[in-house]
Amino acid sequence: MARYITQDKLTKLYDSLTTHNLDFLYLTDSEAHRDVNVKYLTGHPEDATLFIDVKNRQTTLIPWDYQLAKMYSEADRIINMAEYKGVTAATVEVFSESSTSNPKVGIPRGIPYDNVQLILDKVPSAEIIYNPTIIDSLLADLRSTKSKEEITMMKKSIEISNQLVTEIEEVVISQSKIKTEMDLAVFVESRMRELGAFAVGFESLVASSARSWQIHTYPRADPNQSLFQKGLALIDFGVQAEALTSDVTLPFIMGSMNEKMKTIVETVKSAHDSAIDAISESQYLHEVAEIAHNIIEKQGYKMPHSLGHGIGLTVHDSPLLRQKPSHESLLKHWTPTRIEEGMIFTIEPGIYEKDVGGFRLENDVLMTRNGPKVLTNAEPIFIDLN
Amino acid sequence: MARYITQDKLTKLYDSLTTHNLDFLYLTDSEAHRDVNVKYLTGHPEDATLFIDVKNRQTTLIPWDYQLAKMYSEADRIINMAEYKGVTAATVEVFSESSTSNPKVGIPRGIPYDNVQLILDKVPSAEIIYNPTIIDSLLADLRSTKSKEEITMMKKSIEISNQLVTEIEEVVISQSKIKTEMDLAVFVESRMRELGAFAVGFESLVASSARSWQIHTYPRADPNQSLFQKGLALIDFGVQAEALTSDVTLPFIMGSMNEKMKTIVETVKSAHDSAIDAISESQYLHEVAEIAHNIIEKQGYKMPHSLGHGIGLTVHDSPLLRQKPSHESLLKHWTPTRIEEGMIFTIEPGIYEKDVGGFRLENDVLMTRNGPKVLTNAEPIFIDLN
Repeated sequence: MARYITQDKLTKLYDSLTTHNLDFLYLTDSEAHRDVNVKYLTGHPEDATLFIDVKNRQTTLIPWDYQLAKMYSEADRIINMAEYKGVTAATVEVFSESSTSNPKVGIPRGIPYDNVQLILDKVPSAEIIYNPTIIDSLLADLRSTKSKEEITMMKKSIEISNQLVTEIEEVVISQSKIKTEMDLAVFVESRMRELGAFAVGFESLVASSARSWQIHTYPRADPNQSLFQKGLALIDFGVQAEALTSDVTLPFIMGSMNEKMKTIVETVKSAHDSAIDAISESQYLHEVAEIAHNIIEKQGYKMPHSLGHGIGLTVHDSPLLRQKPSHESLLKHWTPTRIEEGMIFTIEPGIYEKDVGGFRLENDVLMTRNGPKVLTNAEPIFIDLN
Repeated sequence: MARYITQDKLTKLYDSLTTHNLDFLYLTDSEAHRDVNVKYLTGHPEDATLFIDVKNRQTTLIPWDYQLAKMYSEADRIINMAEYKGVTAATVEVFSESSTSNPKVGIPRGIPYDNVQLILDKVPSAEIIYNPTIIDSLLADLRSTKSKEEITMMKKSIEISNQLVTEIEEVVISQSKIKTEMDLAVFVESRMRELGAFAVGFESLVASSARSWQIHTYPRADPNQSLFQKGLALIDFGVQAEALTSDVTLPFIMGSMNEKMKTIVETVKSAHDSAIDAISESQYLHEVAEIAHNIIEKQGYKMPHSLGHGIGLTVHDSPLLRQKPSHESLLKHWTPTRIEEGMIFTIEPGIYEKDVGGFRLENDVLMTRNGPKVLTNAEPIFIDLN
């Protein structure tokens, strides 16, 4: 394996960090704190610190697992922490050796506080640059369009996802193999790996009509909950065939619908289709989101989450498809983003009503030179309960 | 559900924070940054901010999913972020409303940098108290001994784990159902949920002899790798029956062993047994770790990870069973910990040699009034490859 970022983009990253007068960019990924940029910039699967030396255009990786890094990761230097008595000690030493007198050290907004403190303890003259509008946006922008190699990897995840959509429809319609929400989650997560997935993209959400109005519907909340209850149900799953993950939600309509359910189903379908129709190069992402929100709000409902998000090395990648923020503290860090060729994102409008149920339809869309291409084939599935 | 921490321990937490003159403790848990203390202190499954108002002995939870919190979580106040335009806005507003003129706000060491920045932007007079030796150690100490309720929940995870150990032995010895590393991972993860687990404790590690010498052995590295290759193989898995997760490693000896393999197997087994024999109330944890390290080092090997760790709401819970740190920057935050009744931790010595293979044996141990009780039944499994 090697880094996922292309050489062109890496140059762009160095150029931009140079323009902003940064000496270093300091990133970390650990069990409690995931930062996809470490993987994106080096290929290293997980658990490492990365220093980017802007002046010397050099990357230094300090992995927890040195052997893993030697096999999978690409950096100008890979440090064996065993020679420094641990990752923490190595991080501090490597930084203090390479830093100049008053190094300006850029950090991503979410870096753990103690990582910063470690550096400041050892190099008190370091100036910490916390500037999400520059640093986090820059990294997110680079990740938001996928390279040819990334698109090829994603297509494997998509292929397995589409096979699963067909098979889920079969097992749910037949009502034989599957009884509970948990059964369906286990079926999907096992089957995707039989079909060649490397890993589950994320823990599947499965909700019968008893709780589809909730948002966090992990089947673990009640492993005996029957899937086959009259009303609106759904499964939300992701396939990681190589490194990139898909993200699909299939809604089920169990038995006949009442008027409220009909309105919810039609409104979500309309928001989904209209959003996809609105996608075109140079359109703003927040405007696409607003189209879906408006359709939903016109029916008196509110969508409690964003319309969609990029998918990639992490299931919630950039770009984000959300309305322009109304709160001033958020608006401060916000800049509008246009749709570009190579973006891959979900379109997943949903409505959730406690007494009626929840309904979400989610497909993955690739922006190509010739317009949007809907990669996945999720559609509402009607189940006859009689 | 309710909070996992007992009332006695919650009182202890307030008392200790009062002694250290803190006005607030500020914790957050999010997709990119997991802090098990939010779950421990409120029962809230994930994604929330928690303010602990020390003077008023009041907890305020600001969850991303308000409905989920209403059902599952216990806090004196639960804030509906919809009334504040998002979790970020709610966090800032709720804090600034409740804070006094110069509030001393304790943070855990790994809190994301931007969470601190948010507070300081709104309440510049806030004093951020970063003191791992007090704050992080206090929380870790409270979590390290389990209540009766937690032990009962853990026993369900253990029961399923032990059933799996038996079934893994069967399917691996029979060599029929299972061909690859990935097959075994899929078998275990599906089967545990059929047996009543709510979720997979963590992504299973499975390594054939081709790569058991590595540490991060997710089967996704090569889903076609055959499990049945001569040498040392292993599976490391966790079961989450309710909220608490077990953690077991079963090593396989495939075919006959050469002398080096024999030494590794015997040394690890001896380190495992000697460590368990050394467990007794008021013994220091680092001394137990040193017994295992010494046995391994006497044979000319080095164990590249700690001897074990607590298990609980997170798979890597407190306490940690590791040697006394040798590096001064780590020693600064270190205090020796004695074994106490109610602790549940893994004992998992391992040796990893590139040309020979990797071997780890891991069991879960509960410290009871009458001494250590080994809960799981992992043993080396011998497989005849002929």
